[in-house]
Amino acid sequence: MKKIEGGICAVKGVTANGIKLGKMGITVIRAEGPAAGVFTKNKVTAAPVVLSKGVIETQHQLSAIIANSGNANAFTGDDGFLDAMEMASALSESLDLEPDTVAVASTGVIGRRLDVSWIREHLPEVLEGLGSSPECSLAAAKAIMTTDKALKEVAVELDCGVRIGAIAKGSGMIEPNMGTMLCFAYTDALVPADVLDAALRIAVDKTFNMVVVDGDTSTNDMVLFTSTCKSGIKPCMECLDEFEDALIYLFTDLAKKMARDGEGATKLIEARVTGAKTYEDARLAVKAIVRSPLVKSAIFGKDPNWGRVVAAAGYSGAELEQERLSLSFSAGGETVELVKSGEISRVSDLALLNKIMANEEIIITLDFGMGKESATAWGCDLTYDYVRINAEYTT
Amino acid sequence: MKKIEGGICAVKGVTANGIKLGKMGITVIRAEGPAAGVFTKNKVTAAPVVLSKGVIETQHQLSAIIANSGNANAFTGDDGFLDAMEMASALSESLDLEPDTVAVASTGVIGRRLDVSWIREHLPEVLEGLGSSPECSLAAAKAIMTTDKALKEVAVELDCGVRIGAIAKGSGMIEPNMGTMLCFAYTDALVPADVLDAALRIAVDKTFNMVVVDGDTSTNDMVLFTSTCKSGIKPCMECLDEFEDALIYLFTDLAKKMARDGEGATKLIEARVTGAKTYEDARLAVKAIVRSPLVKSAIFGKDPNWGRVVAAAGYSGAELEQERLSLSFSAGGETVELVKSGEISRVSDLALLNKIMANEEIIITLDFGMGKESATAWGCDLTYDYVRINAEYTT
Repeated sequence: MKKIEGGICAVKGVTANGIKLGKMGITVIRAEGPAAGVFTKNKVTAAPVVLSKGVIETQHQLSAIIANSGNANAFTGDDGFLDAMEMASALSESLDLEPDTVAVASTGVIGRRLDVSWIREHLPEVLEGLGSSPECSLAAAKAIMTTDKALKEVAVELDCGVRIGAIAKGSGMIEPNMGTMLCFAYTDALVPADVLDAALRIAVDKTFNMVVVDGDTSTNDMVLFTSTCKSGIKPCMECLDEFEDALIYLFTDLAKKMARDGEGATKLIEARVTGAKTYEDARLAVKAIVRSPLVKSAIFGKDPNWGRVVAAAGYSGAELEQERLSLSFSAGGETVELVKSGEISRVSDLALLNKIMANEEIIITLDFGMGKESATAWGCDLTYDYVRINAEYTT
Repeated sequence: MKKIEGGICAVKGVTANGIKLGKMGITVIRAEGPAAGVFTKNKVTAAPVVLSKGVIETQHQLSAIIANSGNANAFTGDDGFLDAMEMASALSESLDLEPDTVAVASTGVIGRRLDVSWIREHLPEVLEGLGSSPECSLAAAKAIMTTDKALKEVAVELDCGVRIGAIAKGSGMIEPNMGTMLCFAYTDALVPADVLDAALRIAVDKTFNMVVVDGDTSTNDMVLFTSTCKSGIKPCMECLDEFEDALIYLFTDLAKKMARDGEGATKLIEARVTGAKTYEDARLAVKAIVRSPLVKSAIFGKDPNWGRVVAAAGYSGAELEQERLSLSFSAGGETVELVKSGEISRVSDLALLNKIMANEEIIITLDFGMGKESATAWGCDLTYDYVRINAEYTT
């Protein structure tokens, strides 16, 4: 497996484009084939989520995706659903597609009616530029950005020649069941929808669902995974493992970019719980650590506050014994152990500890000393800017 | 029932005192009788919690409490447990009590050995001032404060003459299963330990367990409830209801003070979920609302961001239908409705809405329109100062 350029357009059979004018943006991706999707678990779901979920669950294939930024089309009632349908119709008419194979995604302000006429007006401009160059993938990725600071795009080629590419947006409101985040992934492997679905669920669970920026989950999240089948390569059993690993690799890359891009963040926190009795224990604890506002603000303050890490694991519901806990902070390949088997370690090299805490990527490793299960989660620090951004955002 | 002065010393048979020198403080309360306790559910528990839980569960009575601030005596291993026992011994020797009827509580820094010799040294000074004046209750309440800005003390007298008083400390790290908070409550009603226990569990569940400052729970929390039986009044069945209500009233008062005292807080948020199908639904949703960093920072920014409130209820796990939701913001007896039965209301009086959002106590009411169950929770806004306090706290 190797990383390649070109984002989603590195995948055979994918054309894309996007435009962004002020806060509003439109992205169109055309790629026909079997498809799978994972959607927000929030009980309050936006109209485009309802529509796209219906398409995936009844058709198991997609011909195209139309997405907009600037307005989430959430909490907009029946009108909102008609607006989402009109987005799908506008695209299917222009490209001569079956309307019930078009997925719709939206991100932005909640509770305000979507200006569909604006989308209709600018759609021809987007379609005119539809292409398969790396720039087209970039334009598609850019047009769905909202508070994102970094563009999120990645692609790989497997040893067998199959390619997978994905673009994503997301920062802030990202949590367990996927906060305001969109991810559109593509492959050219010759695989049916159920193979895509299985790989997608595993990968989302280990990556996007382990990103915690502030504990809130959104009404609009979705991850869609389509195969154009255009490589003509049908993965063997071994290749399928590589295929799944590649998807996890791609999504991990995007998930870390989202965590690092958390509103106001200055640091990426990677928390690892190892030596747990069960995976569920590891998962509960590691998410409590990256979700803890006290841990997050300590990391912002460059403070190796292991007490808060241990307390978070303690209240997470995970089974642990404090006498067995070991804890270390790492960065840039260097590690300082702070607790070993429940005993506080004497830190001999304070300069190294300070150097680690000053890094932009901090790894916290908490070993339970009880078993063999482990889990990793990503988050960011809690900063003055987080408060500023979210206190000043106007509704 | 009427509110009275004197805190815990308003209760017959209670003597108390406390001293605070710099960050360290010692509180002693002497009051003999049946007792009950509720302790942190964090899997990482401090030595004094282990000790006091053992006393309550085996003796069902207390003769005194010794508490210190400045050091939590948590994550201190076997030494820590011996230190907690020595605190109990020091007090029981001085006052000629059975050592296994003395409860110990600690609050402060985690993971540092407690300086018991300092406590032994200053204990005589505390005991010298032991008394039943209102000032003694105040001194006891003050000596357990850490980051608290407001003193937390309250007392009531029931119509039958029974009195209940309580002191508490807590701000920050306060959540579901009671973050760093201590509460010592006393009554002079002639009741056995099991009656105290039942009333205590109900009251803690509806009050302290509904306070959310930042989502973290502590290793040291405990609420102890002792009866001196000194009023000689044995409550009848009706009076018992009043007794339970009075305890809820007392704890609600203290819980709101804790929420308002959350680190860096400028506003108290009271969230109410009404019309839920089950109490559990109401509880899940209302806690998600006051825990949401996005809601908390919106309130700091005086922003009536109903979308974030609805999204928090949506991801809480509570059963709801967005078409039935109604939402309003209130303060100072005035209310503005923002959503009615799933439809966004046109707000005619923007000046009133701005006035409400500028208040120091904001009430958010979310009605599910599905049933008759309701729950209330308290929290505070998320501010620059919260980040500053927790980023700069040194470990």
